[in-house]
Amino acid sequence: MEQPYESLRCDVAAIRERSPLVHNITNFVVMNNTANALLAVGASPVMAHAEEEVEDMVRLAGALVVNVGTLSPEWVRGMERAMHAAQEAGVPIVYDPVGAGATPYRNAVNDRLLRGARPAIIRGNGSEILAVAAGFGLGAAAQTKGVDSTARSDAAVAAASALSEHLQSVVVISGPTDYIVNGSEIRENGHGTPMMARVTGMGCTATAVCGAFAAVNGDPAAAALHAMTLMGLCGEQAAMRAEGPGSFQAAFLDALYRFEV
Amino acid sequence: MEQPYESLRCDVAAIRERSPLVHNITNFVVMNNTANALLAVGASPVMAHAEEEVEDMVRLAGALVVNVGTLSPEWVRGMERAMHAAQEAGVPIVYDPVGAGATPYRNAVNDRLLRGARPAIIRGNGSEILAVAAGFGLGAAAQTKGVDSTARSDAAVAAASALSEHLQSVVVISGPTDYIVNGSEIRENGHGTPMMARVTGMGCTATAVCGAFAAVNGDPAAAALHAMTLMGLCGEQAAMRAEGPGSFQAAFLDALYRFEV
Amino acid sequence: MEQPYESLRCDVAAIRERSPLVHNITNFVVMNNTANALLAVGASPVMAHAEEEVEDMVRLAGALVVNVGTLSPEWVRGMERAMHAAQEAGVPIVYDPVGAGATPYRNAVNDRLLRGARPAIIRGNGSEILAVAAGFGLGAAAQTKGVDSTARSDAAVAAASALSEHLQSVVVISGPTDYIVNGSEIRENGHGTPMMARVTGMGCTATAVCGAFAAVNGDPAAAALHAMTLMGLCGEQAAMRAEGPGSFQAAFLDALYRFEV
Repeated sequence: MEQPYESLRCDVAAIRERSPLVHNITNFVVMNNTANALLAVGASPVMAHAEEEVEDMVRLAGALVVNVGTLSPEWVRGMERAMHAAQEAGVPIVYDPVGAGATPYRNAVNDRLLRGARPAIIRGNGSEILAVAAGFGLGAAAQTKGVDSTARSDAAVAAASALSEHLQSVVVISGPTDYIVNGSEIRENGHGTPMMARVTGMGCTATAVCGAFAAVNGDPAAAALHAMTLMGLCGEQAAMRAEGPGSFQAAFLDALYRFEV
Repeated sequence: MEQPYESLRCDVAAIRERSPLVHNITNFVVMNNTANALLAVGASPVMAHAEEEVEDMVRLAGALVVNVGTLSPEWVRGMERAMHAAQEAGVPIVYDPVGAGATPYRNAVNDRLLRGARPAIIRGNGSEILAVAAGFGLGAAAQTKGVDSTARSDAAVAAASALSEHLQSVVVISGPTDYIVNGSEIRENGHGTPMMARVTGMGCTATAVCGAFAAVNGDPAAAALHAMTLMGLCGEQAAMRAEGPGSFQAAFLDALYRFEV
Repeated sequence: MEQPYESLRCDVAAIRERSPLVHNITNFVVMNNTANALLAVGASPVMAHAEEEVEDMVRLAGALVVNVGTLSPEWVRGMERAMHAAQEAGVPIVYDPVGAGATPYRNAVNDRLLRGARPAIIRGNGSEILAVAAGFGLGAAAQTKGVDSTARSDAAVAAASALSEHLQSVVVISGPTDYIVNGSEIRENGHGTPMMARVTGMGCTATAVCGAFAAVNGDPAAAALHAMTLMGLCGEQAAMRAEGPGSFQAAFLDALYRFEV
């Protein structure tokens, strides 16, 4: 791999050496995937969601990953407490607003959690980022329906930029091209494969992997770019070996594990 | 593939073209499997269980899949609300009474949910269908213990037929031969492989795939027959490539994805 | 396979013949893995956690597996009730104190559950066993930090021995060498592969597999030794076929299924 990947390789080496604890409060569908992806990269995943222990757990962690895919009030209380404690302890938070815009409850939870603590990184697809931005009165989610995908993508990047400035978070939009948005600064990752959209939880896995990088790299924009690039590169390798989404999943974990630094 | 599969292929093409949203309230064990199977077929899975949002979510969906494998009161409340809202909105419901008959609580939940809303399709194994029918005073579950499997299978089909007429639902009994029972009309699927019983959640996956077909085919009996046939055909293909239940799972998802229409 | 494995093979044959029901109350991350491992060995897994039904369910089971990986108060109440009912009914309990020592809540739960009912087998890694023992005033967990791994391993075995005598449970310490501790009697399993530490839930799977053996073998020390040995042997076979942790998982389940008796 050429020069541009040197800083990525450097971070992967750091993850493997330090094996940072990544505390995940995530959804039921992807817990196994994200734990395995974190282990394959070299990090140490822990899943714990109860109000009774999240504050103690997150203080041991190098990063906190919060993913609202399968919400309920008890879990939201655990997420809120964990995010507060992480912020106080200086533990970087990575936030995944799964399904933002789908239901009023989901929007209310995103608003509440994001007003309570500042994530280092927020990662979602275009429509999720538009919905989160709209919750802060930013962007113009409602008007974007029905427009062509280029305009939609432009609108999402604009909303991400406004959201990034408002929250002082790096905002990642996943898609065929990933946009890593830090205020007005926009970086892109073009690596990846359409097969990644045919496996559940690849977006959630990207969020978790952002957590592993954020645990070893103090620059959230660099951490996010490295995470998305690693996902894309390993996705490309796995796609070459896979005959469908089932074999792709195993090959993807193998590629993460075998990534040469 | 020959002529009889033309209507199956037609439905699969429709699922891939329309990518219907299938709203799942299902058990913790199989969420990942069923989401991946739905994606591999071409549908869009969403998992959401909280009372606070299930009504909003199900109104966006082409089908609702309810599976009581890992029950608790909060989840039952979410299921009940979702089923009511689905019925009002004309969204077809597919119901999986996992473990029916095992505990009084499980039976009480099945009775409550099935009296509250009418599923388009109910899918279970023979003993589950017998237990559900017994809850409505149909069939004779208690007497079937200890009889040989042919008699048991006959009793299950008879109970399914009575249940189907009582609830006006299509009832599917899974097994070496699947029976798709619509009142007095009984269709069979003989495709499949014993390996499917050695992987957790293949029955739950069949239920979820019924949801994908019900979202594009207004005839629940045809939708259920197509779903069970597709499961069986893909199971047969996967078994030829697998060396055990681990490799079977990946090969099965690959087969669903590669199924030619 | 040579002579020493004859009693292991005998137990595996018994599991396949009787297909004992193993009732699991386990964590969200590993439910799918452990259900599939139990099916691959030949047992019948069931997952049920609600207070409303665990007592009825556990009475049908050949073993109860309790794993506190993703705790919350409702689940702890279900675990407590299931353990009481199992003890009354003479159903062997296998207990996995995941993450013991990480948070005060986790320690409090382990203390409460282990004072309420006596497991036949407790399985954890060295630091988890040290933390559980410390909760009973046994061993000297606090002093072991920073010591080299041999001393730490010795300390864990000493703590396991004290815990085993105190609770009258067999205590298993997993690691590169597994120690099966029954009071002052210590047996070892050296089979295994470092790849097992790169897949989430292999420890939890070992605990669940202990449940399958405990259901057919009335000697908990033998059951635990057989379970750990089978895990190690199948891990070694899978490692030879795997290119990373993704392909390892499938190969491991295949190996469990194909294990020759």
